[in-house]
Amino acid sequence: FVADQFQAHVIWFGANPMLPGRRYILRTETDSVSATVTALKHQVNINSFAREAAKSLQMNEVGVCNISTQAPIAFDAYKDNRSTGNFILVDRATNATVGAGMIDFPLRRADNVHWQVTDVNKGARAATKSQRPGVLWFTGLSGSGKSTIANALDRLLHARGKHTYMLDGDNVRHGLNRDLGFTEADRVENIRRVAEVAKLMADAGLIVLVSLISPFRDERRMARELMEEDEFIEIFVDTPLDECARRDPKGLYEKAFAGKIANFTGVSSPYEVPESPELRLETVGHEPAALALKIEQFLERRMEEK
Amino acid sequence: FVADQFQAHVIWFGANPMLPGRRYILRTETDSVSATVTALKHQVNINSFAREAAKSLQMNEVGVCNISTQAPIAFDAYKDNRSTGNFILVDRATNATVGAGMIDFPLRRADNVHWQVTDVNKGARAATKSQRPGVLWFTGLSGSGKSTIANALDRLLHARGKHTYMLDGDNVRHGLNRDLGFTEADRVENIRRVAEVAKLMADAGLIVLVSLISPFRDERRMARELMEEDEFIEIFVDTPLDECARRDPKGLYEKAFAGKIANFTGVSSPYEVPESPELRLETVGHEPAALALKIEQFLERRMEEK
Repeated sequence: FVADQFQAHVIWFGANPMLPGRRYILRTETDSVSATVTALKHQVNINSFAREAAKSLQMNEVGVCNISTQAPIAFDAYKDNRSTGNFILVDRATNATVGAGMIDFPLRRADNVHWQVTDVNKGARAATKSQRPGVLWFTGLSGSGKSTIANALDRLLHARGKHTYMLDGDNVRHGLNRDLGFTEADRVENIRRVAEVAKLMADAGLIVLVSLISPFRDERRMARELMEEDEFIEIFVDTPLDECARRDPKGLYEKAFAGKIANFTGVSSPYEVPESPELRLETVGHEPAALALKIEQFLERRMEEK
Repeated sequence: FVADQFQAHVIWFGANPMLPGRRYILRTETDSVSATVTALKHQVNINSFAREAAKSLQMNEVGVCNISTQAPIAFDAYKDNRSTGNFILVDRATNATVGAGMIDFPLRRADNVHWQVTDVNKGARAATKSQRPGVLWFTGLSGSGKSTIANALDRLLHARGKHTYMLDGDNVRHGLNRDLGFTEADRVENIRRVAEVAKLMADAGLIVLVSLISPFRDERRMARELMEEDEFIEIFVDTPLDECARRDPKGLYEKAFAGKIANFTGVSSPYEVPESPELRLETVGHEPAALALKIEQFLERRMEEK
């Protein structure tokens, strides 16, 4: 078979759980590609062989997954050929082997879905607006000031005749991502969907402002890799945790410190600081309007570079 | 409790399976609201009480679900109060009772997600483009000509200086909806996500062209109800099945008739004809360009009405 989607049995070795939506490196005898578990169909109870519902796989657990690779790979079903029907999964950050898999069968869904070519393309749409489409990805702790700065920038760009859209992580949770909670697996899927929508909006010619805690490096990298070269602008809104907790605009830190909110970034869940964001904004001692202006100047230079 | 999301045990009575994402009427002792099962967490095996993975509930099956109601309702946990802790689910089309439920506990997710007010709103964005945002929803059989007509209209509107975007169902399946297949449950979720993205794009001031088979009345109604009044324009691309099969641009009907594609609309899965679309286009004997012009004239009248 040559395909980019298949079903497989996966045995998980990683210390961190296997999360659908997160990207891993998939290695077969002949190929090495970026791959995502698009669905964990069920976990297999290794004592009773019962099919149990699960959202992630912990160490030593076995699950049946749909896997999607970035490019098609050649393989056989494991039952037909053990050497061409197996693979390993490697963590992109640590390079550790985190899982092993046996391929069950290819999924044909992509076969019957042809890409519809649209005549009016991104260039044509962007040209009519004299702007360079892009995705401004604001990351930072809750209460760091992401939405406030994004809002100030939105006003500024709108006043200069740019066509923008603000995709706020909180707002999307009331619609598109209404079915998602705050577990690690759901947060990964939340970020994936927001990134895909931002990509569609950039394709529509817009300057998209995304305001999303997005605490994990891996998901921010996933979002970056979805976009075209130079289209993703990571803006790290750098506010110390104690300052965020002091501002606490939504009263969430107080609840989090009291143990009333699980998986709260910075308190009961980690925030991985961006290593090389396009912009890093220190908010302590700086007005949102001044920071917005700084971003606008960055965008103007970017426009000239083009 | 007063909440708009909770977990419940549901017993399904309906002849059609319970599908996450589809809307039902939820009735408690005191309330009657539109409700959606946002997630089927697992099915309960009624012999062994094991938690089994499932994507839908068939008749007489029991599942643990997250349910989201359109407005908050007052309730108790079933274990605390049997009369204020239960509800029934009613099919919106037939008015038949299709399920009964016992509430486990409220979900607090919405509590901690505040709506971020954005300063630049839809009106401001649309005003700068002298256009009325909207969602043109093309529905019809595979091969009916939806994408061809939408593409012709897209070119026409672009030439007149309108800012449009085409959301093609097939293309979205390569990105945002990559994790979804073609089962009924997955098709409902596919349409829900496309509708939510179309809503965001209309909110960005765009005229959005959605080309999607969308065979079920209920999902088209769901899409319509997501949008503002008069923002949803349903366009029924009316081509007889035998004509679609004769054109067969993607070679899919041949495969479907040979039984090689499951759940193929018009062959092995129903297409529910729109009852009162804003526009109905007969394609036999009419050129796509002429049909596109007809839509454009409809939009011009709509713009004047405003």
